[in-house]
Amino acid sequence: MSMNSFGHLFRVTTWGESHGPALGATVDGCPPGIAVDEAFLQQWLDKRKPGQNKNTTQRKEPDAVRILSGMFEGRTTGTPIQLMIENTDQRSKDYGDIVEKFRPGHADITYWQKYGIRDYRGGGRSSARETAARVAAGGIARAALAQMVPDLQITGYMVQMGALGIDRAQFDWDEIDRNDFWCPDAQAASAFEAHLDWLRKDDHNSVGAVIEVTARGMPAGLGAPIYGKLDTDLAAAMMSINAVKGVEIGEGMAAAALTGRDNADEIFMGPNGPEYSSNHAGGILGGISTGQDVVVRFAVKPTSSILSERRTITKSGEETTIITKGRHDPCVGIRAVPVGEAMMACVLLDHILLHRGQVGENQGAIG
Amino acid sequence: MSMNSFGHLFRVTTWGESHGPALGATVDGCPPGIAVDEAFLQQWLDKRKPGQNKNTTQRKEPDAVRILSGMFEGRTTGTPIQLMIENTDQRSKDYGDIVEKFRPGHADITYWQKYGIRDYRGGGRSSARETAARVAAGGIARAALAQMVPDLQITGYMVQMGALGIDRAQFDWDEIDRNDFWCPDAQAASAFEAHLDWLRKDDHNSVGAVIEVTARGMPAGLGAPIYGKLDTDLAAAMMSINAVKGVEIGEGMAAAALTGRDNADEIFMGPNGPEYSSNHAGGILGGISTGQDVVVRFAVKPTSSILSERRTITKSGEETTIITKGRHDPCVGIRAVPVGEAMMACVLLDHILLHRGQVGENQGAIG
Amino acid sequence: MSMNSFGHLFRVTTWGESHGPALGATVDGCPPGIAVDEAFLQQWLDKRKPGQNKNTTQRKEPDAVRILSGMFEGRTTGTPIQLMIENTDQRSKDYGDIVEKFRPGHADITYWQKYGIRDYRGGGRSSARETAARVAAGGIARAALAQMVPDLQITGYMVQMGALGIDRAQFDWDEIDRNDFWCPDAQAASAFEAHLDWLRKDDHNSVGAVIEVTARGMPAGLGAPIYGKLDTDLAAAMMSINAVKGVEIGEGMAAAALTGRDNADEIFMGPNGPEYSSNHAGGILGGISTGQDVVVRFAVKPTSSILSERRTITKSGEETTIITKGRHDPCVGIRAVPVGEAMMACVLLDHILLHRGQVGENQGAIG
Amino acid sequence: MSMNSFGHLFRVTTWGESHGPALGATVDGCPPGIAVDEAFLQQWLDKRKPGQNKNTTQRKEPDAVRILSGMFEGRTTGTPIQLMIENTDQRSKDYGDIVEKFRPGHADITYWQKYGIRDYRGGGRSSARETAARVAAGGIARAALAQMVPDLQITGYMVQMGALGIDRAQFDWDEIDRNDFWCPDAQAASAFEAHLDWLRKDDHNSVGAVIEVTARGMPAGLGAPIYGKLDTDLAAAMMSINAVKGVEIGEGMAAAALTGRDNADEIFMGPNGPEYSSNHAGGILGGISTGQDVVVRFAVKPTSSILSERRTITKSGEETTIITKGRHDPCVGIRAVPVGEAMMACVLLDHILLHRGQVGENQGAIG
Repeated sequence: MSMNSFGHLFRVTTWGESHGPALGATVDGCPPGIAVDEAFLQQWLDKRKPGQNKNTTQRKEPDAVRILSGMFEGRTTGTPIQLMIENTDQRSKDYGDIVEKFRPGHADITYWQKYGIRDYRGGGRSSARETAARVAAGGIARAALAQMVPDLQITGYMVQMGALGIDRAQFDWDEIDRNDFWCPDAQAASAFEAHLDWLRKDDHNSVGAVIEVTARGMPAGLGAPIYGKLDTDLAAAMMSINAVKGVEIGEGMAAAALTGRDNADEIFMGPNGPEYSSNHAGGILGGISTGQDVVVRFAVKPTSSILSERRTITKSGEETTIITKGRHDPCVGIRAVPVGEAMMACVLLDHILLHRGQVGENQGAIG
Repeated sequence: MSMNSFGHLFRVTTWGESHGPALGATVDGCPPGIAVDEAFLQQWLDKRKPGQNKNTTQRKEPDAVRILSGMFEGRTTGTPIQLMIENTDQRSKDYGDIVEKFRPGHADITYWQKYGIRDYRGGGRSSARETAARVAAGGIARAALAQMVPDLQITGYMVQMGALGIDRAQFDWDEIDRNDFWCPDAQAASAFEAHLDWLRKDDHNSVGAVIEVTARGMPAGLGAPIYGKLDTDLAAAMMSINAVKGVEIGEGMAAAALTGRDNADEIFMGPNGPEYSSNHAGGILGGISTGQDVVVRFAVKPTSSILSERRTITKSGEETTIITKGRHDPCVGIRAVPVGEAMMACVLLDHILLHRGQVGENQGAIG
Repeated sequence: MSMNSFGHLFRVTTWGESHGPALGATVDGCPPGIAVDEAFLQQWLDKRKPGQNKNTTQRKEPDAVRILSGMFEGRTTGTPIQLMIENTDQRSKDYGDIVEKFRPGHADITYWQKYGIRDYRGGGRSSARETAARVAAGGIARAALAQMVPDLQITGYMVQMGALGIDRAQFDWDEIDRNDFWCPDAQAASAFEAHLDWLRKDDHNSVGAVIEVTARGMPAGLGAPIYGKLDTDLAAAMMSINAVKGVEIGEGMAAAALTGRDNADEIFMGPNGPEYSSNHAGGILGGISTGQDVVVRFAVKPTSSILSERRTITKSGEETTIITKGRHDPCVGIRAVPVGEAMMACVLLDHILLHRGQVGENQGAIG
Repeated sequence: MSMNSFGHLFRVTTWGESHGPALGATVDGCPPGIAVDEAFLQQWLDKRKPGQNKNTTQRKEPDAVRILSGMFEGRTTGTPIQLMIENTDQRSKDYGDIVEKFRPGHADITYWQKYGIRDYRGGGRSSARETAARVAAGGIARAALAQMVPDLQITGYMVQMGALGIDRAQFDWDEIDRNDFWCPDAQAASAFEAHLDWLRKDDHNSVGAVIEVTARGMPAGLGAPIYGKLDTDLAAAMMSINAVKGVEIGEGMAAAALTGRDNADEIFMGPNGPEYSSNHAGGILGGISTGQDVVVRFAVKPTSSILSERRTITKSGEETTIITKGRHDPCVGIRAVPVGEAMMACVLLDHILLHRGQVGENQGAIG
C-alpha cells in the first residue's frame, strides 16, 4: 500500500523531488511484449517540458528519460520498468525568503505540519515536477494501448482559461496541436494568448484553466464497480494532479441543473452495436464504459507563485509578507494537458488488464 | 485488491444486491475500544431511509442493521466488523419490461456488456441500495471519530436543486435538519419543495442536485501525497456514489476563473496556530489538510427512472421504448446527503489512522 | 489493505469470532458465470466439521453456510459473494478460569497485549473456527476451478502424526477418503489411530502433524515474481492457518541436505511438452509453476488445550496454573486437511486470474 | 497491487535485472526524520557482495548504492526513497549454451512459459542479484528500527550446510562475524569450510543450507491477524528469496513430532512483564509477537548451476544436455544470510508502523 502509487494491475509508483538528483517512475504490471523505447516516451515528456514558448515558465530542463529495467530486445518483459529523469540543475543556490516563509497556496505549510520537515528546494516532493514521472509512465501505457487497442485515441485540450471558454461549435481536433494552449478552437486560443500576455506582463498575476481529456474508440465494459469504477479511478487520477480542484465526467457539475428527460442518453442500434442519442454520461454508466467517448474535465487553479505581495507566516510562526519571484508558469493549466492525457492512458490500460483478470478477455463486450 | 472496497487502513467492503437476501459492509481496521451499537448506526441509516416524506420514494424498507462481529462488551475489538441489512421484500414479482429492456441512464446495459449477466431485479449490484451499506460503515467511522477527535463535525447539505441554488448569505447550520432537503437556507428549501412537487406531479420528471459536505474542527496534517492525497481520496469516494458526475474541493471548477491574486488564502497567526484570510483551497493544500474546514461538493444527476417514454434496445438488440414505472425518488440528491457524510467520515478516519502509521501520532500537527 | 483478507484478484476477507452471532467470508473477484450453490460448499464444510468421529472434538456445530449475495439464477455475477455461517450456540455460559487466565500456547496473551481486550469466549477471533470461513471460500474457488481448469485436482492428506510417518511406497490416492486421518497409507492410518487413542485416553495429551496438499493437473506459468510468487503465496496461505509452524515446497527443509547434482530435476520432452525426471522443486521454479504437481507441506503444532496442568499468569499479572478442560481435538492436524485444500484452491484460482490480468489468457503456456 | 512489492505500510518495490543498466528498490512509507546515508546502507550490501572469499562466487561487483530521493539534510522526509545500484559489467558477451537451453533448477523455463520471453543474460529478473535491492531496502529499515526500537537486534546465521549442522550447545553470538559462513559454532564453521572445499574442487557440486534469523529485544504486540500475521508475513518474505524451499517459525516442522505437554511455553512473571519457560513458539502466538525472541529458519536449495552435465531441452523443444559454467556460489546459502536479515528488518518495521496505524502507538504492549 504505497501512497505514491496508483493503478490496480498497471501500477505506477513515482518518486523524487524537485531538486534531488533524479525523479522517476517504477511501472509494474505492463504486459510483456510491448514495443517501446526512450524516444517514444520522450515525445510526451517534450510536450510537458517547460520553456517551449513564452506562455510557460522559462526554466530549461531537458527532462530526458532513461529506461533502466523491464526491457529485453526492445520489448517489455512483464517485469518492473524503471524510468529515471535526472535533475540537471541541482546546484546549491539562494532560496531566499522561502527557506523560512510558507508560500500561500503551496503545500509548504502542510508538509511542515505533517512531516515536521521543510524541504524548501522548489517544493520538494510537492512540486509539479513530479508530473514528469507521470508523463513518462503514461508513455508506457500509450505504447501498450497502441498495440492492444489500436483504435483508441486519447486527447487532452484546454477548454477554458480564466473567464474565457471555447465555442463548442468551433471545435476542431486538428487545431489542438497548432497552438500553444492545446486549444481546439483557434479563436479561443488567440483570446487566451492575449489575456495571458496581459496577466503576465502588466498584472503580475496568474490564472486558472479547465482541461478536458477525451478517449475515442473506447471498448465497452471497462470499469470495476463499486469502488474501482472507471469514473471513480479517473476522478482520483485527475484530482491527484497538482493544483486540480474539481473533476467532471460528461455533464459534470452541470448535471445538477438537468431534468431526467433532458439527461437521458437514449439507446438505439447502430451497425456495430448500441449507439446513443447523446453523451451526457461521458461514456460511463454505473462505473463501466458504454463504448461512447469517455470525457473527463478538470479545473486547475491559478498558479500560486505570483509577483504580488501576499501575507504569510514563517516556520517559527511570525507574520510577514512574501512575493514569490522566479520563473513560474502564469497558467499551469497549459502544461497539465499532457499530464491529464497520461493519467487517462494509465487508467484505461489498467482497466483493460483488470477486466481480463476479473472477467476474462474473451467475455463481455471487450472480447 | 477488492474492487468492492475502499480505504487504506480503515477498509470498507460492501456486498449485496438490491433484491438479494441481504446486503452489508465488512469493516476492517477500526481501532479497538470504540463504543458503538446498532442504535447508533441506525440513526444514520434512518436519515437515508426511503419513504420518510413525499419528496423521496414511497417504498418502505426498514433498513435495520445488525452487527455480526468485531464487538465485545459494547466496544470494538480491532477485528472485522460485519454489518448486515436484510432485504425484507424479496418476493418474486413481475419486473415487466426491464427483464429484457435496458433502462437509459442506468447501468443495465454496461453490466450486461461487462459480465454477460442481466440481474434485472432492481438493478442488482448497481442499485443505489448499496449506499445503505456505506451509511452503516460511516456510522462506525463516526463513532471512532467522536471518541478520537471530539471536535470534528461532519455535515452534508443540499446547495442546489436543478437551477435553484442557496443564498450563501442565508446559510444557517441549524436549518439543515429542519427541512426535507437538508438545506441550510430555509427559503431555498421552500423553493426546492415547490419545484419538486411540480416535477413529480405535473411534469413526470426528475432533477439533479449539488450536495456539499463540510468537515469542521479538522486536524491539520491529514492526507498522504501523492496518490493518497486527502482530496484525491475524497474525489474517489464521492465519485463512487451512484449518479455522481462531478466533484469539487473548495472553489472547485470555479477555480479556473480566478486569478492567483484572488485565489490566495493569505496566512496569519491566530491564537491556536495558523489562520487564513479565506478558504478557496477547501482546507487542503498539496493533498494535506490545513486545519481549515474541508469543503467537498458533488453533483448528482437527475433520476434516470422517469415516467416519460424514452427510446432504448433489448438484450437481443431490438429497438423499442421504455417508461420506467415504480416508486422512484424524483431527486436522488436528497438521499445522497447522508451517503456523502458517511464517505467523508470514512475517509477522515482512514487518514487519521494512516497518519499514525506513516508519521506517528505524536508527530506533526496532529500529535 | 485489510489484514483479514488474502488474495490479489480473487480476494477473500474473513470475519467473525468463535462465539459471536455468525462468521463468514466476503469473497470478491470470483469470475462471473460460475455455477455454484450452498450444497456444493457444504460438502467441504462437512469435511472440516467437528464431532464426526472419536478423533476430533465432540462439539456439535452444523456449520451450515448461506450465500447472501453475488449470485443470480444459480451462477456468480462477478460481484461480491457473502458467505455466512451462523453460530448456533452462543448462550452465556461459565468460561471459568480462562476469563482471567491466559492459556499457554494460545493467542490469549498476545491479543491482550496488542488490543488491550480479552474476548475469552473460545478465543474470539483467534479461534480456529475462523477456518470454517476459509473452507466456504475455498468451495467457491473449487467451483470456479472445476469450470475453468477441469483437469486440476487438489488433494490434502496427513503424512505424519507425532513421530509416526507414512511409507511413501504405500501411497494410495484412493485410501485418503477411507480413514479418519485423510491418510494415503492405510497402515499408517491404523498406527495414527492407536497412538491418538492412547494420547487422548491415557496420556491426556495432544500431538502435532504434517499435512501435505498436492495439486495435480497444473497449468504451467502460474505465479507472479518476485513477491507474488506461487510458493510465496502458498507459504503465506498455509502459515496463516492456526497452529502452523512450518511450510515446505517440494523437498522443503530437506533441500538443505541435498547436493546440486541430486537436486536437479532434469528436463526432457514428453508427448505434451516438457517433462521432468523428478520433482524436487515441488512444481515451482522461480516462483512460477512448471506444470508438474505442486506439492506443499505444513506442520501443525499439538493442540495447546490439554488436560495437564501448566503454569501461567492472569490478566493482572499474578502467577497461577491452568488445566484447559472442554472438548478439544487431540490432533488439530486432522481438521487442518480441508483447510489446507481450501487455501490451495484460493491461491491457484487467484493466480490463474492474475496471469490473465498481467499477461493475457492466450499468452504463455496457460493459453 | 504490484507483484514486485512487499510490505503494508513500509512498502518495498524492487526492480531491475541481472544484466540491465541498474537495479534497485523504491522504498515507500519510511517514517520521516530517520538519519541514514549511503555508507550505512553500503555495509549491509558489502556483507552480501560476491567475491569476498573463496567460498562465494569470484565475480566482482562493487554493488555501490545511491540514494536518489526521499532525503533532506541527511534525514528521511517521509516520501519515497529510491535506491539504485548500477550494474557495472553489462558488456555484450557470449552467453553460449544458455541462449537456447534451459538450465535445470533455474527459472529459465518457467519465465519462458509464462511470458514468452527468454532474457538469457544471467537469468534476467529471476537472478539472485535482485536480492541486492532487498539488502539496500533492509538497510533503510535497520536505520529506522535503530532509532525507533534501539534494543532490537536482528542477526542471521547458518545453522546447517548439507548434512552438517551446528551444535546448539556451542552457540556463540560473537562467533558469527568471525567466519565466512556467519556460523555461530566455530567448529561447525570449520567443517562447513572443509566440506565446501571438497565439493567445489573435487566434486564439482553444490550444497544446500539452513539459515536462521533471530530478532532479540522484540516488542510484544506486533502482527496483524488473520492474514497479516507476523509469522505469515515472515514466511512470505523468506519464501520469496531465491532458492528457498521451506520456512520455519520456532520449532517449525519439528513441532509435528511434539506433544502438547512438551510444546507448552509456560508463562510466569518476570521483572519486566511476562516471561516464558521455553520458546517453542518462536516468539509468536496467534500471529502476534510475545516479546520473546522471534526465530525464523529457511532452507536454501543447492545452487543449480553446477559443472556436472545434466539433461535439458532447448527453447524449440529439442532434448540436449547442459553444463553450467561460470563463477557460481557453491553454497548460495552463505550470501542468503544478509538477505534474510534484511527481510526480517523490513517486516518488523512494517509491523511497528501497522500497529501504530491500526491500534495506536500508545496502546497495548508497544506503547
